[in-house]
Amino acid sequence: MKNYSAYLIDLDGTMYRGDEPIEFAAEFVDTLASKGVPYLFLTNNSSKTPLQVSDKLQQMGIHATPEHIFTSSMATAKYIKQLNNRARCYVIGEEGLYDALNQEGHTITEKDCDVVVFGIDRDLNYEKLSGACREVRNGAAFISTNGDVALPTERGLEPGNGALTSVVTVSTGVNPTFIGKPESIIMEQALEQLGTAKHETLMVGDNYHTDILAGINVGLDTLMVFTGVTPYTDLSTFDKMPTYHVRDLKSWIEYI
Amino acid sequence: MKNYSAYLIDLDGTMYRGDEPIEFAAEFVDTLASKGVPYLFLTNNSSKTPLQVSDKLQQMGIHATPEHIFTSSMATAKYIKQLNNRARCYVIGEEGLYDALNQEGHTITEKDCDVVVFGIDRDLNYEKLSGACREVRNGAAFISTNGDVALPTERGLEPGNGALTSVVTVSTGVNPTFIGKPESIIMEQALEQLGTAKHETLMVGDNYHTDILAGINVGLDTLMVFTGVTPYTDLSTFDKMPTYHVRDLKSWIEYI
Repeated sequence: MKNYSAYLIDLDGTMYRGDEPIEFAAEFVDTLASKGVPYLFLTNNSSKTPLQVSDKLQQMGIHATPEHIFTSSMATAKYIKQLNNRARCYVIGEEGLYDALNQEGHTITEKDCDVVVFGIDRDLNYEKLSGACREVRNGAAFISTNGDVALPTERGLEPGNGALTSVVTVSTGVNPTFIGKPESIIMEQALEQLGTAKHETLMVGDNYHTDILAGINVGLDTLMVFTGVTPYTDLSTFDKMPTYHVRDLKSWIEYI
Repeated sequence: MKNYSAYLIDLDGTMYRGDEPIEFAAEFVDTLASKGVPYLFLTNNSSKTPLQVSDKLQQMGIHATPEHIFTSSMATAKYIKQLNNRARCYVIGEEGLYDALNQEGHTITEKDCDVVVFGIDRDLNYEKLSGACREVRNGAAFISTNGDVALPTERGLEPGNGALTSVVTVSTGVNPTFIGKPESIIMEQALEQLGTAKHETLMVGDNYHTDILAGINVGLDTLMVFTGVTPYTDLSTFDKMPTYHVRDLKSWIEYI
């Protein structure tokens, strides 16, 4: 088995389900840490700051600092910086997105915006949507943290950011640039953050359509686990297979 | 010129723009009334009750009673009644939709619904959208008053009901049944309400993609006016032409 010198690791369905840690996740990460293998957690969830995410992992006994976290909000703020060093941003989103845009030096405002930035917002309302449509019609670039259509929660599936984003897409006829998995944008940035080459980095996740396709799209080897949304029985239906698949992370620890 | 014995007439862009009456609209309707030609105003706007709409028209000097008004909410409530005489409805919408569903004897509730009914709602929030997605995933029929993607307002174009509806469509993968123009459902119901045959009824409106196509789709002759959203310069781009087109309603009064 190939020995990888760095890991990109999904969170929801791979490290935890909601507020419950997944079995062997802590041991898996401990092994990476004790062997000095760099790793970065990669999440489409745009709502939390890196500190909030690492706190959650720590409370589950999973070794993580804010430097181990890379969110779709961070990738979005960095992507916007490539377009415009200090962009005027119309923002629909939660704390993680506001924080990431501030960290990159962008201005959050409501008029004459360079960019409309759309992330999940559980305080969404018609006024916010209307403003986003107005700014897109006025020529602002349209960027969305991720295209996930549904979020698994304790209450069942809830509307994801991709579904909310569609209001602006349908109303204006302008398609957004999505940043998160399975898009390559977040993956290229995460690789740059890790500082490792593609051939020596492994992408680990439970969701075929985001995690595994993200790895495949950018040319990484992939490790699929069946502790989250994609069931084992779906495996035979995929055109492009993950490099490896295991029932849970315990089976992989010996290869680290 | 053929003499029509009944008229279906659009409101926004044909009778008024926002709160301003359109020139010759009142004279046009007065002529219909004085000659005893039946007419019905047909609007995709689901937010108002028939009384609210007729009050608005009266204030503009346009002859109308609640019986002259047929809204997409009324068509939706009647359509649901064909599926289920007393349906349990999960509703996203405004007063006009609640009123129409109540008039038809449906129950408005949030759990175990037969139908999710989606109309424009300027008090939309994430909870409402989440509940609609849950009920559709649980097997409720998914019905939307109209597919308009944008609403012309004094503040510019705002998100229309078709754009808002897309959150549920994209999240659940279930397409709604749209009721309003250009769909045939609202047209067939309006014709039944008027009690006239298709060959003797004229559909009048300003919006090619809703009013005129609605008429064409259901086999009515159509009269297009250029006082609203579709500009005269678009006329040459259409595959199917309106039967007649006039700059404004003044030009048509002599043919009533």
